[in-house]
Amino acid sequence: MFTFTELRLLCAESIFLKYSGYFLPLLLFILTKYVWKRFACSSANAARIQKEVIDTSNNIQTDATNDEIIEDEYRPHLPELEHVAYRGLIEWLDKSGDKFFKLANDRRSIRKFAKNKHVDIEVIEKCILAAGTSPSGAHTEPWTFCVIQDALIKQEIREIIEAEEYLNYSQRMSRQWTTDLRPLKTDFIKEYLTDAPYLIIVFKQVYGIRSDGMKQQHYYNEISVSIATGILLCALQSAGLNSLVTTPLNCGPAIRNLLNRPQNEKLLVLLPVGYAADDCCVPDLQRKSLNDIMVTY
Amino acid sequence: MFTFTELRLLCAESIFLKYSGYFLPLLLFILTKYVWKRFACSSANAARIQKEVIDTSNNIQTDATNDEIIEDEYRPHLPELEHVAYRGLIEWLDKSGDKFFKLANDRRSIRKFAKNKHVDIEVIEKCILAAGTSPSGAHTEPWTFCVIQDALIKQEIREIIEAEEYLNYSQRMSRQWTTDLRPLKTDFIKEYLTDAPYLIIVFKQVYGIRSDGMKQQHYYNEISVSIATGILLCALQSAGLNSLVTTPLNCGPAIRNLLNRPQNEKLLVLLPVGYAADDCCVPDLQRKSLNDIMVTY
Repeated sequence: MFTFTELRLLCAESIFLKYSGYFLPLLLFILTKYVWKRFACSSANAARIQKEVIDTSNNIQTDATNDEIIEDEYRPHLPELEHVAYRGLIEWLDKSGDKFFKLANDRRSIRKFAKNKHVDIEVIEKCILAAGTSPSGAHTEPWTFCVIQDALIKQEIREIIEAEEYLNYSQRMSRQWTTDLRPLKTDFIKEYLTDAPYLIIVFKQVYGIRSDGMKQQHYYNEISVSIATGILLCALQSAGLNSLVTTPLNCGPAIRNLLNRPQNEKLLVLLPVGYAADDCCVPDLQRKSLNDIMVTY
Repeated sequence: MFTFTELRLLCAESIFLKYSGYFLPLLLFILTKYVWKRFACSSANAARIQKEVIDTSNNIQTDATNDEIIEDEYRPHLPELEHVAYRGLIEWLDKSGDKFFKLANDRRSIRKFAKNKHVDIEVIEKCILAAGTSPSGAHTEPWTFCVIQDALIKQEIREIIEAEEYLNYSQRMSRQWTTDLRPLKTDFIKEYLTDAPYLIIVFKQVYGIRSDGMKQQHYYNEISVSIATGILLCALQSAGLNSLVTTPLNCGPAIRNLLNRPQNEKLLVLLPVGYAADDCCVPDLQRKSLNDIMVTY
């Protein structure tokens, strides 16, 4: 037999009940978060399933009744044309592969550019057209090449990059990373950004906008744009130009804003392009041998 | 005043207490997961902070007492040599950029290869050496090129890829994705994997192993290896060979196991290489114009 007072005492003594005011709200908060997440997922799934059901029924409807054509919402981004006979490769250098190897092997990353050696914009255009022949996921060609000649914009880009690189070198990059860069003698000062006659800033379009305003997925856009950059490097070397591939860490949004590029474009790499300065030095690097990079089966 | 029976009745009537056996374990489970996650993070942080304190004290010790030299645990992966004068670029094609553009522009992705047209392995080697001249983050050269000539291994690779691609096309890829591939007429059947005289499988090394057994970070390895792939494509075209860049979705681990490659290597792309079959067809594609890919400032 308990009195009401005794019951209150019992409640007061129960640690569980006593502190329930503290931990129950916490438990409820976590539970709410958890349930919300689950709910969000399942409603997304439900929406997807519902959409698929509608898609299917639309298709059935289209198939069944030809009275009104319900347009399929899935359309390829390329026109569906007949394939054509491949006429074979007609341009090459030499069938031994030797000539191109010599060309590629002569390329060095250059960090000091001649200030006053002019380069025709037509040559840069040809190199970018060459880069634009790169393969890409589902032929989406997800690249934008921004070519900067304007001295003021180059100066602004240099200021953005040097400010970020100062933080990168002093705070953001691991000590191992800055140690690994020591033999290359790089630091946050980037004279080449204002010395080189051209900066080519390569943006990857992480998605595209279709003519109907819908988003176009750009499959494997980073790989595609990097392959295009590899072709660009070969084109620049073939035209007798020097360059350097840089990846300005954390500078993407500021440079994108400066150049007024849209939200779907992300900075991938920046290349100063021109001729090496007369007093340019390069690291005394070796490249890996064939045995270190190739395995045959 | 309550009797014990009345109290039991009270408990039985309280929904909270009645169902506590059902939801309390769930709440406890969620709470445990949450706390565990928090704890794991904070202990990782603590370990990092402790390590930094030790690093710092090691450095102070090194600075303060020169009696014994405590070896710096950070060493660059390259030797720290004096830089050398750059002798200038000595290999190029033509300074207008025209010749290389024609070469690059002649490349097409080929999906049907001649079965019996021999290609010397020396040519493939030269092309891979050319790809190995690619720049890479901190000159880490994070690539492995596996070259498959063996018919049985090519057959096994084809089986792995066709099984996965069947699932990719039927289940994993979005309907928009398979729609976007329709104009290219690709499907899960990959005859080129057994027809082409060579398969070049390009692995990115996401990290390396140093001579002291420590992990070597490979900065920007995906970009670096993709750039190398771009150079490889140019080399193959220069040697008069046809190729195709493919990204076999979800096949990486199985192919890595088949080729006995180490854990730090991830499949990036696979290229069948050889000569196009006489009856090879290609999609009737256009490439974007200069105005669509280049912006000047």
